[in-house]
Amino acid sequence: MIEPSEVGAEAPLKAPDNPGQAVARADRGCVIWMTGLPSAGKSTIAETLAPALRARGERVELLDGDVVRENLSKGLGFSKEDRDINIRRIGFVAELLARNGVKVITAAISPYRSVRDEVRGLVGDHFLEVYISTPLDVCEDRDVKGLYARARSGALKGFTGIDDPYEPPLNPEVEIATQGETPEESAARIIDVLEARGYLDVN
Amino acid sequence: MIEPSEVGAEAPLKAPDNPGQAVARADRGCVIWMTGLPSAGKSTIAETLAPALRARGERVELLDGDVVRENLSKGLGFSKEDRDINIRRIGFVAELLARNGVKVITAAISPYRSVRDEVRGLVGDHFLEVYISTPLDVCEDRDVKGLYARARSGALKGFTGIDDPYEPPLNPEVEIATQGETPEESAARIIDVLEARGYLDVN
Repeated sequence: MIEPSEVGAEAPLKAPDNPGQAVARADRGCVIWMTGLPSAGKSTIAETLAPALRARGERVELLDGDVVRENLSKGLGFSKEDRDINIRRIGFVAELLARNGVKVITAAISPYRSVRDEVRGLVGDHFLEVYISTPLDVCEDRDVKGLYARARSGALKGFTGIDDPYEPPLNPEVEIATQGETPEESAARIIDVLEARGYLDVN
Repeated sequence: MIEPSEVGAEAPLKAPDNPGQAVARADRGCVIWMTGLPSAGKSTIAETLAPALRARGERVELLDGDVVRENLSKGLGFSKEDRDINIRRIGFVAELLARNGVKVITAAISPYRSVRDEVRGLVGDHFLEVYISTPLDVCEDRDVKGLYARARSGALKGFTGIDDPYEPPLNPEVEIATQGETPEESAARIIDVLEARGYLDVN
């Protein structure tokens, strides 16, 4: 049963204000925000990092760009305005999870600096920007989904890296050039940073 | 550092598939899904329940209808289709949080039975539907936001309870008639159910 004194002790709170944040900080929730060109390797590294963190007993959620578009942003297109809305939604959900102790990995292109910085402002110190800096020509050679080819042919408009800008982070917490490095090595470098910053115990 | 054997041990997973669910179940995350007419008392009870649960050491997030519309569903209207999309988004986020051990309280009208049942299917056993069954005439007398008056005058179209249907749950886990009962008493009845179902230790 609840006591009136308990109920009265705190003002009613709505997300995203939540005194639970204090708990989460102790549990070292954080947002590992991957950003980079299409085919840079974001999802591959995220899908390598996630099970590695789970194997260390961490709670992990992977918010992949496509999954989020399907569940939170259906109907949005790829204009700057719509992309920004999509990124804000990912940021909103990532923050909710991180403050509850979850290590959240996001893997969306998130090409615009200003909205990434907006999410950084929302999440605070526990935002780790991971710039997957694979150069354009390498990404285009990989062309995992065949979208560069469609963009070059003009069938796809507003494609990041071709006819829509990608703005690299100015001061990312981690920068990963995927060439000559396996996804496991890239994930290990992110884990090193998480250890150094106290989000993981050093093995 | 990660070992190849750790990385290879699990297939890459995307939300909403997540082996972390097993952890969350032990932590007794759940979704406390309030539904009822406008002015039925959903938000008031939610804002009473949330601090009471926090005072017992629980992780709590309150996904209020208005907060979610601002952050996840801006641009959506109040057609059945748009309402359903909004409810699915709340359900998606609630499930992500619940499987990470959070007690999630939602307070949206959620007038349509089919999409509530869809969310129940997503969340599984840990979905507790709380029907705030305050009758229409009482809700209209309260008219917290002045919206019933606007709906009656015709200035507001498609208002739940007036010219848009509210479909009550057929088998809610909790039903609360708010008349003659304080929000604290209503919250205490939800807490009783949480205790009885093992989501809270009995004090």
